[in-house]
This record gives sequence, C-alpha cells and structure tokens, in this order.
Amino acid sequence: MRLLFTIALAAVTAMAADNGVLGHVSAHAGRFGEVARQIWETPEIGFRETKSSAILQHELAANGFEVHAGVAGMPTAFTASYGSGKPVIVLLGEFDALPGLSQKDLPVQSPVTAGAPGHACGHNLLGAASALAAVAMKEEIEARRFRGTIRYYGTPAEEGGGGKIYMIHAGLFQDVDAVLAWHPADHNKVDWGSSLANNGGKFRFYGVASHAAAAPERGRSALDGAMIMLNAVEFLREHVPQETRIHYIITNGGSAPNIVPAFAEVSLIARNPEAAVLEGVWARVMKCAQAGALASETRMEFVQGTNYANILPDDVLADVLGRAMQKAGGYEYTPQEREFAEKMQKTLGAATGGAGPEQLNISHAEGYTSASTDAGDVSWVVPMGAFEAATFVPGVAPHTWQAAACAGSSIGRKGMLVAARTLALAAVELFENPAEIHAASEAYRKRLAGRTWTTHITKDARPPLD
Amino acid sequence: MRLLFTIALAAVTAMAADNGVLGHVSAHAGRFGEVARQIWETPEIGFRETKSSAILQHELAANGFEVHAGVAGMPTAFTASYGSGKPVIVLLGEFDALPGLSQKDLPVQSPVTAGAPGHACGHNLLGAASALAAVAMKEEIEARRFRGTIRYYGTPAEEGGGGKIYMIHAGLFQDVDAVLAWHPADHNKVDWGSSLANNGGKFRFYGVASHAAAAPERGRSALDGAMIMLNAVEFLREHVPQETRIHYIITNGGSAPNIVPAFAEVSLIARNPEAAVLEGVWARVMKCAQAGALASETRMEFVQGTNYANILPDDVLADVLGRAMQKAGGYEYTPQEREFAEKMQKTLGAATGGAGPEQLNISHAEGYTSASTDAGDVSWVVPMGAFEAATFVPGVAPHTWQAAACAGSSIGRKGMLVAARTLALAAVELFENPAEIHAASEAYRKRLAGRTWTTHITKDARPPLD
Amino acid sequence: MRLLFTIALAAVTAMAADNGVLGHVSAHAGRFGEVARQIWETPEIGFRETKSSAILQHELAANGFEVHAGVAGMPTAFTASYGSGKPVIVLLGEFDALPGLSQKDLPVQSPVTAGAPGHACGHNLLGAASALAAVAMKEEIEARRFRGTIRYYGTPAEEGGGGKIYMIHAGLFQDVDAVLAWHPADHNKVDWGSSLANNGGKFRFYGVASHAAAAPERGRSALDGAMIMLNAVEFLREHVPQETRIHYIITNGGSAPNIVPAFAEVSLIARNPEAAVLEGVWARVMKCAQAGALASETRMEFVQGTNYANILPDDVLADVLGRAMQKAGGYEYTPQEREFAEKMQKTLGAATGGAGPEQLNISHAEGYTSASTDAGDVSWVVPMGAFEAATFVPGVAPHTWQAAACAGSSIGRKGMLVAARTLALAAVELFENPAEIHAASEAYRKRLAGRTWTTHITKDARPPLD
Amino acid sequence: MRLLFTIALAAVTAMAADNGVLGHVSAHAGRFGEVARQIWETPEIGFRETKSSAILQHELAANGFEVHAGVAGMPTAFTASYGSGKPVIVLLGEFDALPGLSQKDLPVQSPVTAGAPGHACGHNLLGAASALAAVAMKEEIEARRFRGTIRYYGTPAEEGGGGKIYMIHAGLFQDVDAVLAWHPADHNKVDWGSSLANNGGKFRFYGVASHAAAAPERGRSALDGAMIMLNAVEFLREHVPQETRIHYIITNGGSAPNIVPAFAEVSLIARNPEAAVLEGVWARVMKCAQAGALASETRMEFVQGTNYANILPDDVLADVLGRAMQKAGGYEYTPQEREFAEKMQKTLGAATGGAGPEQLNISHAEGYTSASTDAGDVSWVVPMGAFEAATFVPGVAPHTWQAAACAGSSIGRKGMLVAARTLALAAVELFENPAEIHAASEAYRKRLAGRTWTTHITKDARPPLD
Repeated sequence: MRLLFTIALAAVTAMAADNGVLGHVSAHAGRFGEVARQIWETPEIGFRETKSSAILQHELAANGFEVHAGVAGMPTAFTASYGSGKPVIVLLGEFDALPGLSQKDLPVQSPVTAGAPGHACGHNLLGAASALAAVAMKEEIEARRFRGTIRYYGTPAEEGGGGKIYMIHAGLFQDVDAVLAWHPADHNKVDWGSSLANNGGKFRFYGVASHAAAAPERGRSALDGAMIMLNAVEFLREHVPQETRIHYIITNGGSAPNIVPAFAEVSLIARNPEAAVLEGVWARVMKCAQAGALASETRMEFVQGTNYANILPDDVLADVLGRAMQKAGGYEYTPQEREFAEKMQKTLGAATGGAGPEQLNISHAEGYTSASTDAGDVSWVVPMGAFEAATFVPGVAPHTWQAAACAGSSIGRKGMLVAARTLALAAVELFENPAEIHAASEAYRKRLAGRTWTTHITKDARPPLD
Repeated sequence: MRLLFTIALAAVTAMAADNGVLGHVSAHAGRFGEVARQIWETPEIGFRETKSSAILQHELAANGFEVHAGVAGMPTAFTASYGSGKPVIVLLGEFDALPGLSQKDLPVQSPVTAGAPGHACGHNLLGAASALAAVAMKEEIEARRFRGTIRYYGTPAEEGGGGKIYMIHAGLFQDVDAVLAWHPADHNKVDWGSSLANNGGKFRFYGVASHAAAAPERGRSALDGAMIMLNAVEFLREHVPQETRIHYIITNGGSAPNIVPAFAEVSLIARNPEAAVLEGVWARVMKCAQAGALASETRMEFVQGTNYANILPDDVLADVLGRAMQKAGGYEYTPQEREFAEKMQKTLGAATGGAGPEQLNISHAEGYTSASTDAGDVSWVVPMGAFEAATFVPGVAPHTWQAAACAGSSIGRKGMLVAARTLALAAVELFENPAEIHAASEAYRKRLAGRTWTTHITKDARPPLD
Repeated sequence: MRLLFTIALAAVTAMAADNGVLGHVSAHAGRFGEVARQIWETPEIGFRETKSSAILQHELAANGFEVHAGVAGMPTAFTASYGSGKPVIVLLGEFDALPGLSQKDLPVQSPVTAGAPGHACGHNLLGAASALAAVAMKEEIEARRFRGTIRYYGTPAEEGGGGKIYMIHAGLFQDVDAVLAWHPADHNKVDWGSSLANNGGKFRFYGVASHAAAAPERGRSALDGAMIMLNAVEFLREHVPQETRIHYIITNGGSAPNIVPAFAEVSLIARNPEAAVLEGVWARVMKCAQAGALASETRMEFVQGTNYANILPDDVLADVLGRAMQKAGGYEYTPQEREFAEKMQKTLGAATGGAGPEQLNISHAEGYTSASTDAGDVSWVVPMGAFEAATFVPGVAPHTWQAAACAGSSIGRKGMLVAARTLALAAVELFENPAEIHAASEAYRKRLAGRTWTTHITKDARPPLD
Repeated sequence: MRLLFTIALAAVTAMAADNGVLGHVSAHAGRFGEVARQIWETPEIGFRETKSSAILQHELAANGFEVHAGVAGMPTAFTASYGSGKPVIVLLGEFDALPGLSQKDLPVQSPVTAGAPGHACGHNLLGAASALAAVAMKEEIEARRFRGTIRYYGTPAEEGGGGKIYMIHAGLFQDVDAVLAWHPADHNKVDWGSSLANNGGKFRFYGVASHAAAAPERGRSALDGAMIMLNAVEFLREHVPQETRIHYIITNGGSAPNIVPAFAEVSLIARNPEAAVLEGVWARVMKCAQAGALASETRMEFVQGTNYANILPDDVLADVLGRAMQKAGGYEYTPQEREFAEKMQKTLGAATGGAGPEQLNISHAEGYTSASTDAGDVSWVVPMGAFEAATFVPGVAPHTWQAAACAGSSIGRKGMLVAARTLALAAVELFENPAEIHAASEAYRKRLAGRTWTTHITKDARPPLD
C-alpha cells in the first residue's frame, strides 16, 4: 500500500525570492534551455555524443568548473568540478539519444530525418538540467562560502553502453559522498523505489554447414543450437521468481534454407528487481545456452552486453529530495501547451488519467519501475538519491516518438526546470547540514546489508566505442 | 533392385522319401507340433520361461542330447549337445512370449486371458522347430556316422532381454563353426538381408519437488529435463542418416499437476542398419539427455536396456539355406486353413497381396527388415545363416493378435515344418561338405571387414531377471 | 505493506464466562473433539466420505438440527438447519481426506497404512469445528430467542471434487445472507485476503498407432500432440500476467517405445488471483492444446476437472470475524505439545520463524494465498467471511504428513476450538446486529463490481462420484 | 543395384567426320564457346538475364531461327524456332547466375567482384550448348530435308524463379513432342533417374508489440508463432517418409530484445522424390504453421516460393540420349587442364575418386539426385529426356566457387561440347525415326500412370520479376 501525499503547489516563480539557489537557477534557465534544445537538435547515440558532450563541457567550463574530458577511456565522458574538500556531491548528466526515433517537436509522428536518432528518453534535458543545477550550486557555494565540492559527471551511453560502470571502475566515485540523479518522465515523483537489474548479450552458435537436402546428416545446425537453448529458456520461465523477465530475439537464423546453418545468433536480456537474484537466473540462462550447444554439437560463444544493477534507494537522500521537490514545485501548462498535450494524448492508445505537471508524488513507496539504468550501479558504490520530473505529457512513455517530441518542446524545458530546482535545493540542504550526509551513508549501508556490487562488465573491459 | 527367384514347389510330403533327414523330421513332426502348442498354451515372458524351457530340455534329453541348464547366469537358458568334435553347428531356439497379447487360435481378436502374455512373435514355433531339426539331425549323424557336433541353444528373453548376449559373454559360441537360425513370418524367405541394430534404455530425471502454485521457483522439474531432452532429440532427427529411427515414450511424467515433478522417466530406442552408425547416433541422443539435465538443473541417470547388433549376413550360409529351402518346399492351405486366412486378412487394414505359403523367396537381395534381434549379436561373433518361414497368414505382422492366433494354429505348425526341414537339410549339407564351413568363415570375415563386436551389455552385467 | 495488529491474549478458559455462546462451545468441546478424532481415524477421500458425513449428520440431528442428506446429487452432501426466518447464516463444513497421506499422530513420518488416505488438510477439524459452532449457536438462539436460521452445510470433496459448486447449482445458497468459513493452518489469521482461482482438467490426445521402426510415417503420434501443446504452453508463460500459474504432468506418455503412441494424456491446472483473468489465460491454454492436435494430426478431447473461483473477501464479515477472533483468543502449548512441535519442526527443511498459536494476525491486508478452494465459488454468490486457525505446528504446510499428524493431535483440537469460538462469536454478532448483514451485503456488491459468477462445472454436470 | 556400362571413348575430333550433325557442331563450336564465356563474364541473376538472353537470341536469329522474345510475361524468356510441322523437338536453355558466387577462372577462390553473382551452376554453358545443338540441328534439317520443327526455349530464372512453369501455363509446350535437356555436372551420365520435387516459401507471423519488461502480457509474440511452428515441424520429421527433407531458416526473428516481436519470418523448403507425397507433407507443414499462429494468437501469412516437380524420366528418350552420348564421347584433359583439376581438387575437403571426363556412365539406374529443377515440371507435361555432362572437375558440386571457376574455363567448354553433340545426335535420331517419338510418348504415359501435373504457382500468378 502506498501512502501518497500529493500537493498542488503555487507557481514556481512566486518562490524564487525565498531561496538564493533558486534565483541562480532562474538566472541561467534560459541559457540551459537553449543548451537542451541544441542537444535535442543534434541527437547522437551512445559513445558518439561528441557535440552534445562538448556543449555541456563548454558551459560548465565557462561557468568556472574545472573540466576533465575523455575520462575512463571514453572520449565523451567528462567530469566538471568546483570547490574543494568534503562533502563531495555529484550530479549525474546523460546526453545520448536513441537510434531510429527522430521526431519533430510536434504532437503528430513526424521524424526530422527518417531512421535517424532522436532524444526519446529526454537525455538532452537530463544533461542540461543537472548542469544548470551545478552552475546554480556553484554560485550558491560562492555566495554562502560553503566548504565542499560540487561536481557534474558527464556519463555517456546510458542506453546500453553503461558509461557509468567504466567511470566506477576508473575510481571516479571513490571520494564521492552523495550522488543526486533524476530522469525525465510524465510525472513528478520522489519515492524509495528501485529499478530492474538487467543483464544481456549475444549468444552465438557455430555449427557445420552442409547441403540440407543432399547431406543434412553431415551438418551441425547452429540454428538448432539456438532453438534448443530458447526452448529450454521457455521451460525456465516457470521456475524463476515471477518478477523476472527474460526476452530475446533471433538476430541471425541462417543464411539460406537449403544450407544447414553454420551460424546463428540470439540477443537476450534478463531482468529482476534484485541483482543477486538476477545472477542466479542468469547462470541458468547460461546453462540453457550450453545445453543448446551440447545437444546440437555446436559451439556457443557469449558476448557480454548491457549489465545494470537495480537502484538501491537511499532513504535519507530520497527524503532530502522530497523536501526539495516540495519547495521546487511543479508547473502549469499554457493554453498552447495544453492543446499540444491533448493532441498528443489522442495518439496514445490507452486512457491517460495520470497526474498533471502541477502535481507532486512524494512518498516512501518502495516497488520498482520496469526500466534499467547504469545509475543503478552507481547506487551500489555510493549513496544516491534519484527522482523523476514531468518533462513528458501524462501518459507518454520513454522510448516513443511522443517522448522525443516533448523533449524538444517547452513542456520538456519546464519539466527540466523542476529537476534543476529540485537538485539545487537538495544539494544546498546537504551543504548546509553535513549530518544528512552521514545519515545517508548509514541508510546506504543498511540497504547494502553487507552485499557488494558486482558486474559482468569487468574492470579490464573496454567500452564498446564502435 | 532385387532379383527374386520365386519357385512354387510340389507338396512337402512328396519329397520326404528323397532324403533321410527329412524322414526323421517327418517322424517327429507330430510330437514337436504338440510341444509348440504346449508352449503356446503356457505363454511366459522373457527370463520367466520356466515351463517352456523345461519342455524343450525334456524333449532334447529324451532324444539323447546332453543338456546343461541355467547357463550364463540365466535359469531358463540351456545348451543341448549331441556328437563330438568339429564341425560344431548350433541351432538357435527361442521361447519367450510377449506381455498383453494373449489370444485364442481364432481369426477374431479374443484373448484367452485379457492382459496376459501371448506368443505373438511365434517363438513357441521357433523353439520347437529348431529342436525338431536338432533331433532329426542327431538321427542323421547316427545313421551316416557323421563326425561333428550338433547343438541346440535355448536362448531366453529375445524380446528385449538379450539372452544370447550373456551366452556370448559366457563363451558359449567360442568353439562354434556355424549357427543356423530362423524366425516366424508371413512368408518363406532366404536372402542376404540384415536387421536393424538397436539400443535403448530408460532416461531418469531427478529434480526437486515444490508446490507448483506457491513456490514453482524453488522446484527443479524433472519433467522439464525430459521435455528439453526430447525436444532436442526431435531436432536431432534432421541430422542423422535417414534410415535411423528414434522413438520414445514418457513412462513417468510427474505425479500431480500441482507439484513440480521430482521424477520423470523416458524410455527411448534408437536404431540403424549399422551398429557403428548407431553408436554415433546414440552418443548424440545421450548428449540431448545431458542437455536436458543441464538446462533444467536436474540429474539424469541412464539405465541400459536392449542393445542388439544388426545381423551380418553370411553369404555362404545363406546360399546353403536357400538350397535347403528349395528342397524343403513350402506348403498349401487346407480349405479350412484358407477360410481362417481369409477371415483374418479381413481384420487387417491394408491390402494383403503377399506371397502364399507355397511360394519361396530366395535371392541375394541385401536390405534389412525393421526388426531387431539378439541373433544379430551372434552373427558378429560366429558365421550365422538365418531365414524366415511362413507361419503367419500373409499380411500378418509380428507382435499382433493375429500372429498370436496363427502361432497356435495348424498354419503355424505347417510353417514350423518348413523351418525344421530347411534347418535339417542345411545342417546335413554342412556336415557333408566341411569346405562350406570354411567358405562361410571366409565370407564372414569379409563382411566383418576388420570390425569387432561391441555391446553396451557389458561382460559383467547381470541379466535383468526380474 | 501490511499493517498487523498482533495481540497475545490471555488463556481461552478465562473468557468462557463472558459470553454465553463461548460457554456452549466449551460444553460441547470434548464431544466434538472426539468427533474430529473419529473422522481422522477413518479418512475418506472426496465423494466417498460416507462415515465422516454420517458422524456429523448424527451429531447435528442429535442436537436438534433438521438434516437433509444426499443433497445436490451427492450422497455425502447434507444440510442441517435450526431456527427459521431471516437472517440465514451458513457455516461451511468439509470432511474429505487426501489420498496417500496416511499418518499417525506422531512427530515422525509414520503412516497408519502405507498408501492409504490421511487428513493432511485438517478437514476432520474443519467439519467438526463448524458443527460445534453450529450447535453452540443453536443453544444461543434458544437462550436469547434470536430470530433467524443457523445452518451447517456438509460439503463433500473440497480436494478437487468441488462439492460446493453442485450445491450452488442446486440453489442451496439462494436464501442465505452470510456464510462463515474457516480453514486449518499453522497460524491464526483474519484479513481481507483472497485465494487463487483455478481451472484444470485432462487433455487427451488420440492418434494412430504404427510400428515406430517399420512405418513411423503411417503413425500419428498422440504424444507429439501433447508435446507440441506443452511446448506452446511454455511459450505462453511470458505473455500472461506474472501471478498466473500453469502446471502440468503427463499422465500417459505412450505404451511402448516401438509403437507410435495412439494415446497420450496431460493433466494441467492454471491459476490466477482473478477468475476473469484466468478465463482469458485458459482460453489460450485451450488454443495451445488445439494447436498440438492440429500440428500432429491427432484429435484432442478435454475432460473438465477442478474449477474454483478466487475468494472474494467480504470486508464487513472479515471485520466481524476479526473482532470475534480477538475475543476467542489463541492458545498455548503444554510442555508435551511444545516437545511435539519442536520435534516436528526439525523435520521441516527451512527455518520456521512463524507466529505461535497464542498470536492473532488480524488486519486489512489484501493479497492471496496460493491455495484454491470451492469456498471461493460460494463467495461469488453470497457474502462470505473466512479465516484460518492454528491447528498445525508453525511452519507446517497443508498436504504434508506433518499436517496429517497435527490434525490428529491435541494441537489440532485446540486450534479447532479457536475456530469454533470465532465462528460462534461472529454468528452471535450477526444475529445481534442485522445491520451488519446489510453492510456485508453492500461490501459484497462493491467487491463484485457488477461481475457475475461463472464456472466450467456446468449446471447439468454430474458430480464425478467415482 | 545399378548396372553401369562405362566406356572410354576415342577423342571427339576423330568422330567428327562420321556424322553430319557432329560436323555442324564442330563448325560452330568456337563461336558458341565464346558465347558461353561472354555470358559467364556478365553473370545475371534470375529474371534479370537481359544481356545473356539477348546474346543467345541474337545467335539463334543470325542462324535463321524465328525468335519470339518476352514470352509468358517474362522479359528474358524467349522461343526460337526453325522448320515446320511434326515432330516438334524442344531443346531447353537456361542462363541465370547465382547471387554472391562471383569467381575468376582460377583453381583458387578469387571473386571477380566480391558479393556479385557468378555462374556457379554452369548455366552459361547450359544455354550455349543447347543453342549450339539447335543451330547444328537446323543445318542437318536443311541438309537432309527433314520434316519437323526444332526449337530452343530460353527459360529464365531456373534458380528459384521457375520460368519454365510460366511457359507451361502460357501453353508453349502444348504442341511439343519431345524435350531434350541437360545439366552441367562433374561427370557424363545418362540414366532413368529423377530429381527431388520441392516446395517452399515464407511464413510470416504478425503479432502485437509490447515492452517486454513492462508489459509482456500485452504482447503477442510473432517469434513465438514461428518457434511453435518450427518445433512442431521437428516433431513432424519422424512421421514423414524418410526420403523427405524439410529445412528452414529464420529470416526475421524480432527487432529488439526488449520489444515483444510484432513480426517474424521463416523461410522453409520441403522436398520428396515424389511430388504427390510432397503435397501430403506440405499440407502438414502448413498445419504446423497454422498451429504456431493459433497457439501464439498471432496471424500467419504464407508467401509461395519455389515449387518444382520431380523429374519423370522418359525411358525411351533416356535410351536415345544414352546411344547419342556413346557416339558423342567424352574428352581428355590437356596437361594444363589436368594441373588445374588437381589444384582444384586439393581445395575440396573430401576424397574425390569420381569418374573422369573421358568416362560415360550410361545405365537404366533409377534413383534421384538431391537437386530440384523446373525442368521437372516440364517432364510432367511432355516427354523429356535429360542428361549430365562433365563440365566441372570431378568432385566439384554445383553452387560452389569451384563450379563457377570451371564454368569459365576450357574444361567447362569441353564439357559443353559433349552436351551439344549428345543433344544433336539424339535429335537426329528422333527426326530419323518418328516411331521413337511415339514410343517415348507411350513410356511417358506409363510413368504418369494417370497422374496429372499440379503446381502451387497458379496459372494466374505473375512471375516475381523484382
């Protein structure tokens, strides 16, 4: 049972004067709105976000941050730092787009360039809002002479590439006290929720080709290997915890029907709310693949793909963010925005009775979303608080053309301001009250309960840059 | 392409005077007809043929044979020997019935005792005809003072138990020069044909039970193991030589649907015209079973069942038998027998245009029947000639109620005489002309082509007596 | 999140004087303890509970109830009624045992008769406790001159036979205002929970037999039909709501491996917390079965088995029962009982940290247990309240030898008294305050939300008595 | 058992003077060798053989044939005719190349253009040799004033497109008395053999996409449809005649693992030596596909692909061709050709003990090759004789780079001459002796045995030109 405290707040502007940091956010809001739009106009997929990364680096450097680019072996990864000493607070930024989801800022499906990438997960807003909060915070540190360090981490390729994992391996989170993160959504929400841990990759089967009519007995079918594996996976479904997800496609199922396939490839992802449970499931998926190879006398080779941990919520940082969002407030649509929203909602199949952007959903609810993110991995190595801000029209799901359209619209940019304000207010509270950081660390340790982070993206692995 | 020389011969009785041994067969025909009927009336399944074995032992001992009972660790196995020195000629006898095929000697389906065994493979005739030939031959040896030994081997449990294999392991074929064998059928035939090698057994899967609704994820389904194995076997079919056969049943598929099955059992048989090819296929079936266990996290245990080699035909002994059958001749139905045959043929689904019992099919045709027999194993360790005699109405297949009915009728006993006469005449030719035995041995070596007999029924295995 | 109010109560006896009806329960407790033991000693499976039903009928008649036996076409079903007019309150009684679970009243596995039935679901206690409550209530009606009717329904074959469904079809619940039910468990609990709806039956495939080596192409494998169906069912798992359960066994997988199976049979059960959702899932299982027949050119025949609806909790009756259980109280073990419990817990695999019999778990928690019951169907046609009482040692699950042992022990009989007292107190409250019955009816209508009860056990179906 | 008469003949040139038509072949051999090479140098795939078709049309027109281009709705199909009245003898020509098999005329793998088509089935030789024979025959008709008509049919897209089937539908074979055909091979052979009938196409499954982690229950997996179909096909294998072949690939197995596949596609071919048996098998494959759709709640759509009948051999025309090939003779390698052959044979995996190009394999052997051809369809509507000529190095199989290399070499052109001489000599015999044509027609009718040609390429189907 979830206890929800939904609060309709007065307009954002009315509160600006109350707090210095919100004033800084307002001062830079226009500029960073432009930054978000600029990244939206040049959508770049994971590890190739050269321009997007450069734009953000430029803004942060121009505002007095010390920028290190190309960190952790990734050309588009960077850190930007201001201040010194403890606490060290990191704001996470992402900026990669999704392939094939090019879309104009219109409430009808209309790609800018058919087949091109698009910002259907709103990472243009994500990267820009965190940068805006960092700059506002830097000005607040200056103004109030806070001790400590604010950092912005530019993390590439969240959509499967797992840039943050390489940054963890590179030690970039070792001296960090708290991480604050957010994600675009169709609502404003802070809770104690989590995400799904996932693991995936390609299972390649190698057999022996033979003429399928003249000498099938001399062939060893790689496709048989894949089929036997996948049949076994179907039987596995009954015997894993019901929250588990296993899904796959066959990316190569043979080259010609009259040739016994010498090669076949399966792309498979498994998920579970708990990384440790997922490990057990994964070991069994692997056995299914081995069984496919064994029974078909083929060879199986596994190529590691995405592997993200579930988010470990930090109860204290979630409370800090909840308070911050209450102060930050939601926003209301202009008549034009309302029209845009209504038109868009008509394109959605199902009814959309979700909360509007003026509402805040703040609670201690646990549970998890079906998404997976490499921010999950960060949350296993350092206390992390995360929230969602309403950048999409209610009812719009990420990875849709509707999300891409919102991410380029004024609605997206208003939601981005909710995020920036929330991040900035939370960071101020942490600088004001170092005891919170200690409490967050305790809460984090309690959640870990002795467990340690593990990943299949090994320390010596190189990012799949191409 | 088969070259068939089909010869309609004059009635059997007309030829009796021509040859001493046929006279001896005629003299004992009535008695051994009674023996065959007596065994038919007390059908006993493999390794439990106590009465059937005792009847045959009694007749052979009463006719001057030296009988050794309980050989090779099997209570119902025996050897009966007459004469001394080389050559040593063995006639094979079988006498086991089949479960569930009880049937009266009528052309309509009517069990004597529902569910009880019946002689649906005609082994009552097989055992009696070979014994009759042995007794006739003994008298011919006496009459013509032949040097050498005639033996009758009482071999239990041909229907899956493989009695002959234990007799091979016990060394009982080591000093044998030639083996003559026959089998009941719906036609008279001598050729260079073979049989199917087979191998089989039970695949037992052991899992972990769990409540299937409350905690399926804690169970490991033994039935899943069996299903994954069998699915893999289906994929295997495309990639084995097309003459291969693989067939199975599920003998235990779980105990209650709301319990994850902790046990499941598959009974599977594979066959191929070549034992060596079958070995390769079998190794792959085993991998499928291992894959089933691997993918389902269950344990697989294999219990060896029947494993029979294909018959290696001996070209020379086949020619000797062909000549013998030409002299032995076929037989004609009485009006009553014709009526019986016609009534029975109406119970058969398909058209039955097969050759009648008066016809002889003698050729050099190769090929194979779809049956499997442990006489196949004998043929790998000593030169063996084998043929079929028309004990069943044309169109009747073994292992049917129709075959069981014929095996108890006068038709069966007439076909049995064709067999006894052919065996006796062939044995006489071998005693008369020892060069044939040498030639048979050469032909045998040529067929072997350097291969040696192997079996999964290991030398230290104990017969599955219960 | 569940809010639990766990209350340790003073001993039962201390409260006896407070309330007339508890006095009546106490007065008859010894006698009905003997009844429960007597039924335990003569365990009878569903529809064959002749003696068990007779014992209960006898007791109720002897206490002034009007008994109708053999109702709804079932020899062991009966109704027993006292009083007249509204309200009509029904207490449900069950008394069938489970096959193969014979067990002595000892904390070690030791069947009375190996393979015989046993009361491993505690229905001996269930039937006796409800009868005890009915008798106590009858005396309270007399004493306080309540208007209304108390009834006891003897419902056979809860373990798969669905006796209550035939009683619904027979109209026996048409004039009923409220039903009170309970079930033996390892804890005392009242909440707003539900059970799983289930549906099941046998899928019979009919093919064409053929010799699997000689002519497999002439056969149509019934086992193939079953395997293709079941493989399809495995693929279905991914695409049904995750709470769904589908489990099956293969009850006939062919008769001999060398014969293409002409018959195969699958026993399958599907479950879901919502009967309506289950209907959708079931339609798809049926399509899988049809697909198996279609692809294998066999014929499929479905034989309906158990089909139980999920329990619709009645919020008001649950509250009434919660208050009643608080008054009824739990109980404490004697030193001997504690020793018995500890010995038994050592035979359980997992740790058993459950609440003791002195604790009461009363809440508004929703959720569901993984069990299915035909009491679920009753709850769709009349307001029903249900609870569990601690008749089993903590950690003991139904359908185990441990449960059967407890059901025969003094622990079982103490738990049975918790149940009888709770039932009696709740019935008194309903008689005292008819507004509760109206409120219960409102709550029931709200839960129904316009839905109506459906079942695959059609009105003209006859109970599977043999 | 095959009876082979293998005859080593004297060199081809020595025989030229013996027969007028061989003289004509010799006279044009150089020119048509160039034609074959020219087509080899411009390999064009089925229905796009614009240049190849034009070259052949040009040569035939230049030699006095009346050419009709673009017949039967196919731009590259044509007929070329000379003479008038009966008999009408047709020589079949093919000229399409295979995709991806570009290769230089060298004994090492070396494409002219990687990925481009190549003449790996030797159709450049096939088309040129038949045209050469046609021209030689035309000169013989003129010289000997034969009555009757010689035609050359330019038949496109033998490699899957089935050009000849559209030509049958267009009535182009209605007045034809006999068809003579040949195919490049690694040996010279005339017998009574056949080919495999085949049928194939694409099975497209349409489902409903859904997020595979968030809402798999809302999706209907098209890939599930394909998997269930293919699993069922695997079970089908046991129950079809053992000579049957069924082989498939998965051409589309979903687009992203986190999306329930809305589309999947299987490409499947089935084959059997008998078109009628194949029809029965095909109907069952179709049921498997329907079962896949039924069980997965997806929609299945079948797109017809190649459907070729098996060749019905004409015993009389085979004898005519056998005699002709004996007169035509084989050929010997030059030292350079021997070196080429030996180098190429080293690139072949297995031992290559096949007969050399100087040997002729002429027999009445039946049996079939594992290939399928639309010449098979022609043989069901008109008497057809077909043979193979040694254009490839012994051991080289069609559809390999080695075959493409040979087809461009002098070895290919020498084999082409064997074919042209055999065709021409056979045609002369038929013109000389019209009784042969009558006998061929009788033999054809006997083979048909009342059966009629059927095809899934319906009369109103349009050739898949693009």
